[in-house]
Amino acid sequence: MLPPHLKSLIEKLSSLPDTGPRAATRTALFLLSKPEQELRELAGLISGLKTNIKTCPDCFNLSDGNSCAICRDSRRDKSVICVIENILNLIPLEKTGRYNGLYHVLGGLISPMDKISPENIRIEELVRRVKKSAGETREVILALNPTVEGDTTALYIERELSPFKIKITRLARGLSTGNSLEYADEITLSNALTGRK
Amino acid sequence: MLPPHLKSLIEKLSSLPDTGPRAATRTALFLLSKPEQELRELAGLISGLKTNIKTCPDCFNLSDGNSCAICRDSRRDKSVICVIENILNLIPLEKTGRYNGLYHVLGGLISPMDKISPENIRIEELVRRVKKSAGETREVILALNPTVEGDTTALYIERELSPFKIKITRLARGLSTGNSLEYADEITLSNALTGRK
Repeated sequence: MLPPHLKSLIEKLSSLPDTGPRAATRTALFLLSKPEQELRELAGLISGLKTNIKTCPDCFNLSDGNSCAICRDSRRDKSVICVIENILNLIPLEKTGRYNGLYHVLGGLISPMDKISPENIRIEELVRRVKKSAGETREVILALNPTVEGDTTALYIERELSPFKIKITRLARGLSTGNSLEYADEITLSNALTGRK
Repeated sequence: MLPPHLKSLIEKLSSLPDTGPRAATRTALFLLSKPEQELRELAGLISGLKTNIKTCPDCFNLSDGNSCAICRDSRRDKSVICVIENILNLIPLEKTGRYNGLYHVLGGLISPMDKISPENIRIEELVRRVKKSAGETREVILALNPTVEGDTTALYIERELSPFKIKITRLARGLSTGNSLEYADEITLSNALTGRK
């Protein structure tokens, strides 16, 4: 009932995150209504992704060449490394404008359920990086999700980094801004109490 | 903070329907994790859309060449034309498996609010088509949304087709399957009462 070319496109689009067949159909028809030039631009950006985007060999953030824009930036504080699960976590941290150090992208969290063990994420690379910095690294901030996987990973990293003389910190836990105290769960509330100041 | 190529892609993806900047970022990173070959396939499908997909000159459904697959199908009943707003409406109708006639895609509904007047949609084309069929068309089904715009468009088309000796019908209105009577609005319920059988 739909032309085969459109069917193939809808099928491909359906495999994108948060996109069911209905949304994929809507997107395909939307694209069909766009001028040729725009479609060619989008297609070019998609097909050129792999060639134009590399991984930073130091922090594993995305980069367009060798070191990423953050590692290259001479104004950033090279003595602090913020450990994050993935690149999606880097964006909100940068948006706060309150962090001026470097990052280390783990590429996942330890999760026995999902068969992700410490060797599958970039913990060894972090340890090597701290070692190589020969005392330049003063602090490692573990900015991981407040979940079982995040806590497990944080504990593991803390242990691995214990031989080095560096400060290891975690993001504060407490009430989220705008959330009502009435609806905060017990753990959040007890964290908020413990961390009171 | 993100490589320029990725930023451009996220910007382009953000313009897709139901896609905010956050979903666009997730999609871009998802694409980045896919093999080169798959990205090239998706890009090819997008850039080739306009060249490979045409509009059927008879019913304005999408087609890969001249007449669309439905108009070409000799098993379909050529005496019934189902008028729909757009191609998205064709898919669920075909899925019912209960309709075996032809379609006519209006490409919109009359809406003074959105400055869409009868000349902006394919009503004239429908009238010409019925006229040209020289008596072959027995019935026109107006399968338009149960909204003010849908009703206005249906009334307008009924009037335009009144000179021809054809049956003009509309989709039945009543309770949706699975919906509770308790939550049905007054108009739906009164329609359900009127149309009782």
